Amino acid sequence: MEKLRKIGFSRLTPLEDALEKLFSRIQLNPMEEIEVYKSLNRILAIDIVSEMDIPPFDRSAMDGYAIKAEDSFKASPRKPKMIRLVGTIEIGESSTFKLNKDEGIRISTGAPIPEGADAVVKIEDTEIENNIINIYISLPPGKNVSKRGEDTKKGTHVLSKGTELKAEHIALLTSLGFNKIKVRNKPKTSVFSSGDELLEPGTPLQPGKIYNSNTLMISTLVKMYGGMVIRGETIKDDKFVIKNKLIEAAGDSQIIIFTGGTSVGTKDYLPEIINETGTILTHGIAQRPGAPVLIGFLNDTLIFCLPGTPVAAYVSFLKIVGLAIRGMMGCSVLDPRTEMIAEIKKDVPVSGLGYLHYLRVIIEKSEDKLIAIPVKLKGSGVISSLTESDGIVEIPPHQEGLKKGEKVIVKLFPR
Amino acid sequence: MEKLRKIGFSRLTPLEDALEKLFSRIQLNPMEEIEVYKSLNRILAIDIVSEMDIPPFDRSAMDGYAIKAEDSFKASPRKPKMIRLVGTIEIGESSTFKLNKDEGIRISTGAPIPEGADAVVKIEDTEIENNIINIYISLPPGKNVSKRGEDTKKGTHVLSKGTELKAEHIALLTSLGFNKIKVRNKPKTSVFSSGDELLEPGTPLQPGKIYNSNTLMISTLVKMYGGMVIRGETIKDDKFVIKNKLIEAAGDSQIIIFTGGTSVGTKDYLPEIINETGTILTHGIAQRPGAPVLIGFLNDTLIFCLPGTPVAAYVSFLKIVGLAIRGMMGCSVLDPRTEMIAEIKKDVPVSGLGYLHYLRVIIEKSEDKLIAIPVKLKGSGVISSLTESDGIVEIPPHQEGLKKGEKVIVKLFPR
Repeated sequence: MEKLRKIGFSRLTPLEDALEKLFSRIQLNPMEEIEVYKSLNRILAIDIVSEMDIPPFDRSAMDGYAIKAEDSFKASPRKPKMIRLVGTIEIGESSTFKLNKDEGIRISTGAPIPEGADAVVKIEDTEIENNIINIYISLPPGKNVSKRGEDTKKGTHVLSKGTELKAEHIALLTSLGFNKIKVRNKPKTSVFSSGDELLEPGTPLQPGKIYNSNTLMISTLVKMYGGMVIRGETIKDDKFVIKNKLIEAAGDSQIIIFTGGTSVGTKDYLPEIINETGTILTHGIAQRPGAPVLIGFLNDTLIFCLPGTPVAAYVSFLKIVGLAIRGMMGCSVLDPRTEMIAEIKKDVPVSGLGYLHYLRVIIEKSEDKLIAIPVKLKGSGVISSLTESDGIVEIPPHQEGLKKGEKVIVKLFPR
Repeated sequence: MEKLRKIGFSRLTPLEDALEKLFSRIQLNPMEEIEVYKSLNRILAIDIVSEMDIPPFDRSAMDGYAIKAEDSFKASPRKPKMIRLVGTIEIGESSTFKLNKDEGIRISTGAPIPEGADAVVKIEDTEIENNIINIYISLPPGKNVSKRGEDTKKGTHVLSKGTELKAEHIALLTSLGFNKIKVRNKPKTSVFSSGDELLEPGTPLQPGKIYNSNTLMISTLVKMYGGMVIRGETIKDDKFVIKNKLIEAAGDSQIIIFTGGTSVGTKDYLPEIINETGTILTHGIAQRPGAPVLIGFLNDTLIFCLPGTPVAAYVSFLKIVGLAIRGMMGCSVLDPRTEMIAEIKKDVPVSGLGYLHYLRVIIEKSEDKLIAIPVKLKGSGVISSLTESDGIVEIPPHQEGLKKGEKVIVKLFPR
């Protein structure tokens, strides 16, 4: 029995192959229509085409007077041109006024340009007395006028499906008149940590036990990546309990995430259970930390078993589970992390060729470049190695480490 | 009257001076205790010191056998050392077992090391038959043992007040046994957009009108920056209405944000109203876009009047309002935007020396550096210039633009 587990585990799959298998099982979640004001961080399900011109009418870009540009020709501070003030158009008004030669209309920024006018002279470039406007500047036609459709023409493709909606996208959608929008459903996710050593935070410490940080860490990451946590529990390392929880959660979850219970310890039941109830896609990935990852499924529910050591679980989430969550929502950027280019501060030798290595680094600015400083590794369980660093440098499986001064890509922790 | 407004507006304050005045009025919000599982994106109000050693006991870093290291000395695959299996310690158990010479105990990763043992030999480096363990490798004392307090010693300062809590901080807090944590209250914020031209999205377009995108854009930014939106409304450009709304909102808001109504148009009542009811700290800031910003207060409520043009409002939020929100929460990083170093793709001339200019750019990776490509500016109202770019390059007030190839700092849009 033990031997069997060991063998299964010692054949490690390259990460890309594991992801390929995983993505062959991933389907797009259904769409739902939601209010735009609730759409922050949601993933747009359809392309957005403008159904109107923006601006929807010729409008003034300045506070001043709408005029015929030719009436200002050759005007200067010394030789102003004089026209007659014949009215006012306030912002929000629609005017049927028709402007004639040598006439001006007081107009506010954003107000519609009246028929006959083709320029706006700024208030600062004029003086007014007894309804006579002195124009001190010569304007070309079109000056200070925002033409209808100048910003966005009706029919323009303005946002692509798969966009993660932030303040500026929400502003664009509302400026186009949308108050509802189609997004992809959030994947319903259950998170379990198994281990007889795990205590709930807030309870007294007991000998031989540690506090469970994985359930909440992974649940938080699920939320940050756009999923919906419907269950987060700590469970005993008991085959019967784990199996029942798995079957229960598969009934209402699209994703189930376990931490712990995937290694070669005497009580690691998960691979057995998944083999019995569902299908194992991959067990063991050539990455450090994070080798003991298992990916499987049960009916249509994806199952991820991550290592129990928090850093390994964290990194495996970023590299595997997070992509699945965003993939199910059709997100066009599967990995949301920001990438920086930096110089590595010192040589980083790598033991264990064939593994994709994740190096935690701190980023420092040095004149006009960034330096990536490797954080001293104390082990994959040490959460403070995450809170004390800024991101991760990946060392590919067949590269013998990094040379001091080498340019590297740092992927910042998700924010 | 109009002349007065114009004068008030034409004296522009440098941004740093405006921020200094603003921050002289900002006080730290009270703290509240919340559940750690609800603390994502909240700002820690107190320093966190570990009240325990992590790990809390000497524990095995591997699955294998706890032994006395000296019993393995000189062991090799050809000449294994043999010891007796005398028991098992499971993870989560606390054992009173005392190990003697030539004895081994089966132990799982994370299980406590029994008294008398000082190393763990990996299961892969052994074979077992009839309760006799063959050890094929020589181990130094301490091998594969995580010592108590090795990761974090009791009394260690692990997180600083002002930290914005993300998954890894939440993991660290829970691993230390915390289930509740003190954070700063979210600033209660009211958001208004004023303008007779503004229509609510979802209603039919009318002549001379545009859809209001500012209320929702600013409300979304408030949420992204950690504030709590308690009121978001579109209001008419009516002095009486605006004044009443201001006074009403000042009763329950710590921050009130208006967009529109701060320029020199005929119907821009806000400066007048704030002058009558409260105090203007600054009106007019030397930045482009975003010059018409007004900062004031009414009793203890901060008031920000941002330009009505969406891009100007957006940028002013990032540079001013957002810092105030985070400042009230004691956040150690006031501006949450990620900075990148890039080379500017082409010359960028600047008209209007004396203004801090915000240049929207797209970032492209080119070999091992980043290129910042200026986005063609169509005006400060064009929201698509935000959705189509990645961030902002600031050109300081007394710099005559940028030279092609110059290194610039790009501040990515908040995410």
